[in-house]
Amino acid sequence: MSRITAWAVEGIGEIRPGDQLGDIVADACSGAPNGPLEDGDVLVVTQKVVSKAEGRLVPVDASDPLSHKVLVEDEAVRIVRRRGDLIITETKHGFICANSGVDLSNVERGYAALLPLDSDRSARRIRDIVRARLGVNVGVIVSDTFGRPWRKGLTDVAIGVAGIAGVVDLRGTPDSLGRIMQVTEVAVADEIASAAELVMGKSAGIPVAVVRGVDPEWLRESDINEIVRPPQEDLFR
Amino acid sequence: MSRITAWAVEGIGEIRPGDQLGDIVADACSGAPNGPLEDGDVLVVTQKVVSKAEGRLVPVDASDPLSHKVLVEDEAVRIVRRRGDLIITETKHGFICANSGVDLSNVERGYAALLPLDSDRSARRIRDIVRARLGVNVGVIVSDTFGRPWRKGLTDVAIGVAGIAGVVDLRGTPDSLGRIMQVTEVAVADEIASAAELVMGKSAGIPVAVVRGVDPEWLRESDINEIVRPPQEDLFR
Repeated sequence: MSRITAWAVEGIGEIRPGDQLGDIVADACSGAPNGPLEDGDVLVVTQKVVSKAEGRLVPVDASDPLSHKVLVEDEAVRIVRRRGDLIITETKHGFICANSGVDLSNVERGYAALLPLDSDRSARRIRDIVRARLGVNVGVIVSDTFGRPWRKGLTDVAIGVAGIAGVVDLRGTPDSLGRIMQVTEVAVADEIASAAELVMGKSAGIPVAVVRGVDPEWLRESDINEIVRPPQEDLFR
Repeated sequence: MSRITAWAVEGIGEIRPGDQLGDIVADACSGAPNGPLEDGDVLVVTQKVVSKAEGRLVPVDASDPLSHKVLVEDEAVRIVRRRGDLIITETKHGFICANSGVDLSNVERGYAALLPLDSDRSARRIRDIVRARLGVNVGVIVSDTFGRPWRKGLTDVAIGVAGIAGVVDLRGTPDSLGRIMQVTEVAVADEIASAAELVMGKSAGIPVAVVRGVDPEWLRESDINEIVRPPQEDLFR
């Protein structure tokens, strides 16, 4: 039977600049109540703890709830939309999101967190350490919480991947009536990030989840450019 | 431990106009290998089988792979973007998606499927029949596969809900450092639909999944307008 299970990894404390996140994740996942990990598991790690471990923190005025707004343009290559305090930008990575991904939540008062410089690299480092430490081949997704046009609410998406496909191309696979499907490219990394978000819970502040049971064919080398749509293909910028 | 599990429901055959989908789902979920269902489970049912059961099928020229395009404008209130064969429209329901949601995949050759007229009502009917037949209170999501701007690949989202929140408002909940979060509205119905997609598999053609373990507070009355962003709040149309 086709089945996936997702759970939040307990016991990960506050992450600080210089922490080796791969070791912390490997420690937490190596035994009860979270582990052991198995080959083919996918670890979903939230951007915030990656940014903290990598020192992507900038001092801001702690008394000003909009203090991080001054950083938004520095982190952007383009302002996409602006309405009042809401700024939608395109980041250097090609993501289109609010405030260039800069935010204050779950960060020590007086600091703002920037996105990692290269979340694929961050994901690969965690993947490599987990493999070296625990002897299991896992996929790793760095996730962040983005809004989207036309629909209310936020969903978690992938901003970095290692060892797990971004998009799976089902073109050419017969549908259930045996005909060849024209095109179905499924953004599995984003769907896995969303499944993980359901168990991590923003307010509980658990920054890592395990997703077990994904199709083994999705466990392959990849990078975030599988997911970021090139401007020339995009009808909405 | 916070944990969710999702599995595809086996044994649901081809759905035809006039079929009572709630009974078919209740039968499939009432025993091995899929059941029994429990209070708080969420059933995710793909749009295609809802449309088939409700007779939302239109004859088209079987020899023309673009035959459904003639239906797209009828189902739209507005053309949002057009490039070559790709038409992005706003539907009568307020969804913005390719081809007004009209498509040919997993439909008998010579027919196109339209979106259900009211997917909330479709979801409520399934929920009510499952409750009456099996004595369990479940949430039901009708899901469809949509593209999105800026990111490649498709993800499954909710187009109808019954007994499960569309968006959960975490405004005012303290973050992990004890501060009040400014705003985090999580589109949990879309995230649950995405988690279900991971197990349903387009080509396998399994149209129903069960997601177990969602936060019991999310099991409440709702409708799709929790998710559809009103035009006046939208920066991208």
